Amino acid sequence: MEKLEALFDHIASRVNVNLSPMGVDVRSLLKNAIPRERHLLYYAFYALTEDHPISFQFSNSNLAGTYLLGKTLVDRSVLYKANIRGDELKRKGDIVEFNGVKTMLFYDEVIRIINSFLVKTLVHNHSKNPEVPEVFRILNTVAMHYSNIHGTTTEGVYLGAFSTADLSVMHNCIIGDFAYVQAGDLSRVTIEPGRVWVKANGLFEFNYIYPKGVVEKYVKLDDNGQLSGVFIDYVDEFKEDFIPIYSTATPELDIEVPESSYVSPYAVIKGDCEIGENTLIVQRAHVENSVIGRGANAQENCYIKNSIYEGNNVTAHGGKVIWTHNGKNVFVGFNSFVHGTKENQITIGRDSIIMPHTIIDAEEPIKIPVNSIVWGYVTKQEDLETQSMSLCDFAKSTGFTLGNATFTGDGKAFVEAFRHRISHIREENGSDYDGTDETRGHAQKTQDACFNILQPFQSGPEAGMYPTMTIGD
Amino acid sequence: MEKLEALFDHIASRVNVNLSPMGVDVRSLLKNAIPRERHLLYYAFYALTEDHPISFQFSNSNLAGTYLLGKTLVDRSVLYKANIRGDELKRKGDIVEFNGVKTMLFYDEVIRIINSFLVKTLVHNHSKNPEVPEVFRILNTVAMHYSNIHGTTTEGVYLGAFSTADLSVMHNCIIGDFAYVQAGDLSRVTIEPGRVWVKANGLFEFNYIYPKGVVEKYVKLDDNGQLSGVFIDYVDEFKEDFIPIYSTATPELDIEVPESSYVSPYAVIKGDCEIGENTLIVQRAHVENSVIGRGANAQENCYIKNSIYEGNNVTAHGGKVIWTHNGKNVFVGFNSFVHGTKENQITIGRDSIIMPHTIIDAEEPIKIPVNSIVWGYVTKQEDLETQSMSLCDFAKSTGFTLGNATFTGDGKAFVEAFRHRISHIREENGSDYDGTDETRGHAQKTQDACFNILQPFQSGPEAGMYPTMTIGD
Repeated sequence: MEKLEALFDHIASRVNVNLSPMGVDVRSLLKNAIPRERHLLYYAFYALTEDHPISFQFSNSNLAGTYLLGKTLVDRSVLYKANIRGDELKRKGDIVEFNGVKTMLFYDEVIRIINSFLVKTLVHNHSKNPEVPEVFRILNTVAMHYSNIHGTTTEGVYLGAFSTADLSVMHNCIIGDFAYVQAGDLSRVTIEPGRVWVKANGLFEFNYIYPKGVVEKYVKLDDNGQLSGVFIDYVDEFKEDFIPIYSTATPELDIEVPESSYVSPYAVIKGDCEIGENTLIVQRAHVENSVIGRGANAQENCYIKNSIYEGNNVTAHGGKVIWTHNGKNVFVGFNSFVHGTKENQITIGRDSIIMPHTIIDAEEPIKIPVNSIVWGYVTKQEDLETQSMSLCDFAKSTGFTLGNATFTGDGKAFVEAFRHRISHIREENGSDYDGTDETRGHAQKTQDACFNILQPFQSGPEAGMYPTMTIGD
Repeated sequence: MEKLEALFDHIASRVNVNLSPMGVDVRSLLKNAIPRERHLLYYAFYALTEDHPISFQFSNSNLAGTYLLGKTLVDRSVLYKANIRGDELKRKGDIVEFNGVKTMLFYDEVIRIINSFLVKTLVHNHSKNPEVPEVFRILNTVAMHYSNIHGTTTEGVYLGAFSTADLSVMHNCIIGDFAYVQAGDLSRVTIEPGRVWVKANGLFEFNYIYPKGVVEKYVKLDDNGQLSGVFIDYVDEFKEDFIPIYSTATPELDIEVPESSYVSPYAVIKGDCEIGENTLIVQRAHVENSVIGRGANAQENCYIKNSIYEGNNVTAHGGKVIWTHNGKNVFVGFNSFVHGTKENQITIGRDSIIMPHTIIDAEEPIKIPVNSIVWGYVTKQEDLETQSMSLCDFAKSTGFTLGNATFTGDGKAFVEAFRHRISHIREENGSDYDGTDETRGHAQKTQDACFNILQPFQSGPEAGMYPTMTIGD
């Protein structure tokens, strides 16, 4: 495994060049986060569909357990059980608009990941970066367990466990565990753990910081890359369910799925579930004893248990929804933990928004009124007084401080931006599919996907490394 | 499936250009041999090991169910459940000798398969062609079910079902069902079904032709590519056993295998089996209730049932050995059918050679003395009188006619050539492995193989086709 070891060294030095001035040294994280032999154990897989132009290319990389969809370039990187989804990459000839300036793409957008270490990271692209719109970049970056990278650039970044960089740019910065940033250029900035920061330049800014001690209870990553806390205990409980699926070349589903919907063969569907029309359940989603209503979807690393989705619901990457009744159009943001129990169930009224990185850990039954927005840390009904607001009131606001949250700017623009985004997600996912080409989304386009399984060398100096591969184009 | 259809057309026209002057039109064979949807169903897989230089490259091809090991190039070809084994390819810098002239390889030898249709064909290389030693060619060729191509060139060739071209050159020629040729340039030659022809220019020539009606009983391929006969009934019986193996990404063996041996995860081992040291059992071999003694091996498409191999036995590609006791060093050639039953068992004495394409279909117990050579069609003990000989007598012969067999030339050279070849096979397979690098063979080198699984597009005009892929180099 000499070459794999050298690759780890190489990545560490590349990342440290950018981040050590800020007091970060990723060397021991990289050394210890994942036992080396695990990098031999898992295979990468790569979907082929007629809708996604492919150009998969990598060399000198380790891709253990990684899922890739759409155009990609990866080299000298370690991707461990990451999900690299290129199904919203822009195409050659597309016209994109940034800040009112239109520009045309010279070639199909690609995902470039170079000298990076991504562990269980979700990379899903809908890039918003005017610098080079053809390249979705993630360079010299370390992204820890269950972090999300949604709209690059990135570059010399450290992302903590369960953290999210959303419609991001960024550059050599540090995102703490469970922090959420919408980003922009954050060069030389350190974002503390558990900060939720949504900012649109000149328009609005939302800020929330978790109370002291809360983040550590849910996510704690030590210097050796060992993760503990409620989140990891929760997801570890369901680890085993993925094993039979991932040891089968063409796993088969044991549940009825309407023709207009797609349930990935690499998702777990357990117990008594109902899958509606136009739904999308992607790989590494885990759904148990739940009803997924028409037009709803569940993204990577979602855990949905004993819950009802009335329809058109979105559960963003890493969202966990347990013993919860979701009205129509309810949106649950990235890595949110909506954790009811049989005794203490949660009800979320229609059109409500659970912001990214919200924890609702019910110690009593909790009822969220229709058309609400919820953020932060909620364990009791009364917590909603300072951690939520009606979306009508929010839209009228020009600024407020409520509990640990502050908002400045145009409330209407904030609400509209959110609504616009949710409707974009639904559209992309094919929620409104009516049989026409224009309404086809991921649920329909991914249906005929087949999977290439790629395994690393198992012995010798190359053990754990993949051969150079070029697929497509 | 427009592109796949066009590919079939293209292959048919390329092959017919060479073969239609000889009265062959492969168009309806290609159209009907395999239902089109099957080409979508099966995946190709490709082994990575540290010992086999790889450069897998293909485009516009269908590879349904095909296994590839070692350097390859394939394009505009249909390979259906073929085994393409490149584990004896020569390497850059190797010195090869042909007819006393030495030459050095400029680059690693590759397998080139272009505009060909190979169905369940075994391609295993140990090429003997001085024309271009760097390229193992099979161009514009149609090879039907369970045919074997062992040492190319080939080129504009039609190979019938269960036929074998061994240390071959050939060029636009026709090899009938179940015919075996050692080859050389056979341009514009038609080999009738069931002919077994071994020739070394200027040294010796062996010829056997099956009695009228026998070949048809065992193998019959109609103009529509539909196969019938005892052979196909026999192998079809065990088809189901391969399904669970081929639907698993990393199939696991349920049997104890010594460290010095290799049993492919894509072989079937059923019932009560014993696997000795230094044995090799490759993909698509089927072994049931048998003892595979030290240093023995079973090649692709072998079926071994209720049999004992005392040790150092070779069963060449497609050999079937049922209710047979094999003494030490017994060799069973390509596609031979050594078919005993519980009541009518077969015993083969040590050091004996069952020639390629021999049928021993026992209607009574049959005992083959030590150090014999057997050929042709044997159903009773007395048939051995005209279908076998002691190897000592053969070595003294300068020519004979016996039943349907004729031999001319130097018997000693013939026996020595065979012995030399068998010992080469054993050596290559690692039968004599003693822990040293020099004695490592396939059994040892393939141990850490891991498998890339490649699936074709499932829908749209590209359905059944593979994307352009380059792996390695």
